[in-house]
Amino acid sequence: MQSKIIQAIKKGKTFLIVSHYHPDGDALGSTLALGLALKKLKKNVVMYNRDAVPFNLQFLPQVQQLTTELPKQKFDYAIMVDCAQPKRISTEFATAVAAGQFEKILCIDHHLLDQKAGDIDWIDPKAASTGCVIWNLLKKLKLHNSKEIANLIYCTLTVDTGSFRYSNTTPGVFKLAAELLERGADPWFVAMNLEETNPVQRYQLLALSLKSLQLLCDGQYASMDVSQVMLKAVGAHDGLSDDFANYPRSIAGVEVSALFREMDDGKIKVSLRSKLKVDVSRLAKQFGGGGHKHAAGCVMPMALEEAKRRIKNALATVL
Amino acid sequence: MQSKIIQAIKKGKTFLIVSHYHPDGDALGSTLALGLALKKLKKNVVMYNRDAVPFNLQFLPQVQQLTTELPKQKFDYAIMVDCAQPKRISTEFATAVAAGQFEKILCIDHHLLDQKAGDIDWIDPKAASTGCVIWNLLKKLKLHNSKEIANLIYCTLTVDTGSFRYSNTTPGVFKLAAELLERGADPWFVAMNLEETNPVQRYQLLALSLKSLQLLCDGQYASMDVSQVMLKAVGAHDGLSDDFANYPRSIAGVEVSALFREMDDGKIKVSLRSKLKVDVSRLAKQFGGGGHKHAAGCVMPMALEEAKRRIKNALATVL
Repeated sequence: MQSKIIQAIKKGKTFLIVSHYHPDGDALGSTLALGLALKKLKKNVVMYNRDAVPFNLQFLPQVQQLTTELPKQKFDYAIMVDCAQPKRISTEFATAVAAGQFEKILCIDHHLLDQKAGDIDWIDPKAASTGCVIWNLLKKLKLHNSKEIANLIYCTLTVDTGSFRYSNTTPGVFKLAAELLERGADPWFVAMNLEETNPVQRYQLLALSLKSLQLLCDGQYASMDVSQVMLKAVGAHDGLSDDFANYPRSIAGVEVSALFREMDDGKIKVSLRSKLKVDVSRLAKQFGGGGHKHAAGCVMPMALEEAKRRIKNALATVL
Repeated sequence: MQSKIIQAIKKGKTFLIVSHYHPDGDALGSTLALGLALKKLKKNVVMYNRDAVPFNLQFLPQVQQLTTELPKQKFDYAIMVDCAQPKRISTEFATAVAAGQFEKILCIDHHLLDQKAGDIDWIDPKAASTGCVIWNLLKKLKLHNSKEIANLIYCTLTVDTGSFRYSNTTPGVFKLAAELLERGADPWFVAMNLEETNPVQRYQLLALSLKSLQLLCDGQYASMDVSQVMLKAVGAHDGLSDDFANYPRSIAGVEVSALFREMDDGKIKVSLRSKLKVDVSRLAKQFGGGGHKHAAGCVMPMALEEAKRRIKNALATVL
């Protein structure tokens, strides 16, 4: 369906580019890279995301062009990137789709789909990030010769491979990274902004959260909490603990880790991680959640201690 | 001098391979990669390092072949890797060099030297790690077709580029990474072992150390401490705080960070880091230390608070 997407891009005049809420570096990097490229073709482009840009993505080139307000006008095409479900973009967007605000829906993604997402889909489950798929598209359109776009695509690549650590880091990923650097991408610029722009409250919260670190199941399972009391003590919001789940997992001998975050509605958001063998998406499913083998999550409507007890008991049968 | 090193390797029968004390991934990865390759040529090889293997490098292929005891016998060649000064290998090694225990000394390194190090040197300051220089050597000797060696060299590369973040991450680095993966290197195996095998005491220590985090000089300077009291409270040794200096630097707006570690002799070991403009090696030199622009250090024989005061005052004139 690559050629159909290319045809559509050449033919269309007005484009809305969208991605999932709670956006990450792949969602926003892909949105911006595609949007900037289409603007070079003199297309009328709006880039939309329901949520504000997270603090560590505010460095992205041309990030100020993103809007959190869904426009009311009609568009030739809405392009969903890194997301295949209108309701995961926003309720407003799903309503606009149903109301026929877009002539056609395109979808560009690297997540495996079990059904069609848009009128035309370009899905490449072998790509390490949606940004890689966008890069291939832009090369076909000869729109890839830009330092800004190279940095945006590089950001999607480093975020989705865990800075070239995860098992999706293939020789092809490294060859693409070399190509992006030759086009002007700057690894230190991207890494410094992604990882070295933490609010000081993040570490104040980490200091409190680390005190709750527990090794269980003979040291194969480690858990850590972020409670409302901790958040209030340092004046932090929940988003600052987004990757704390990596700390308990990174202990020697630990196979599975869980981060329990008490949300302001009292429910517990659980982030599960595994190192090698355990499929934590199965565990998450038992509690109404989902995810991947090594990273999954669920929301548990109960007290913190009760949520911890249930996850530990469920894990004890697996480890 | 590449051809002379190759000649020497072909001619010699007995080799001692050594690197600097307090070894890192480049020192041990380079030692092992070269040692394993020479053993394939049926050479008599001893791989020596003064210090025990750090916890996060114990996964290195064939790491058990390293010895901390300097052999007494004569060798045709001693090969210093990632180090150009016998005294930085060990007092025993420097004494053995002076006593003529080695027919000739070779040196393979990627640090710029201001004078000759061995009888024959192969120095490539453009290489991201000493392992990259070793890899080029092994390719010339056709000894690079081994998964173990690919993982060892990959480890040197990821350690010395900060997992492909630092400014030494060039297109050539990514092309080499692709080549190593094609030879069997496994990014998740290396990353998981390097970064996800922390003793739990490391995070208990981090929780205490983070409480000392201070933002100074209008938020451009952040400092953090590791005191003997903290070490005793969690039963940890000083080595567990080796990369804590990265935490204060990674705060938004911080240009320079310092980690102050109280050693068991009462002296203060200072690790300095900078993000962009400031050359912390100059600062370190003022206090008898040294290093690179973005990472340097010194040892200050005084009380913790006094060391902190002096560094802050010296910095106030720079920021």
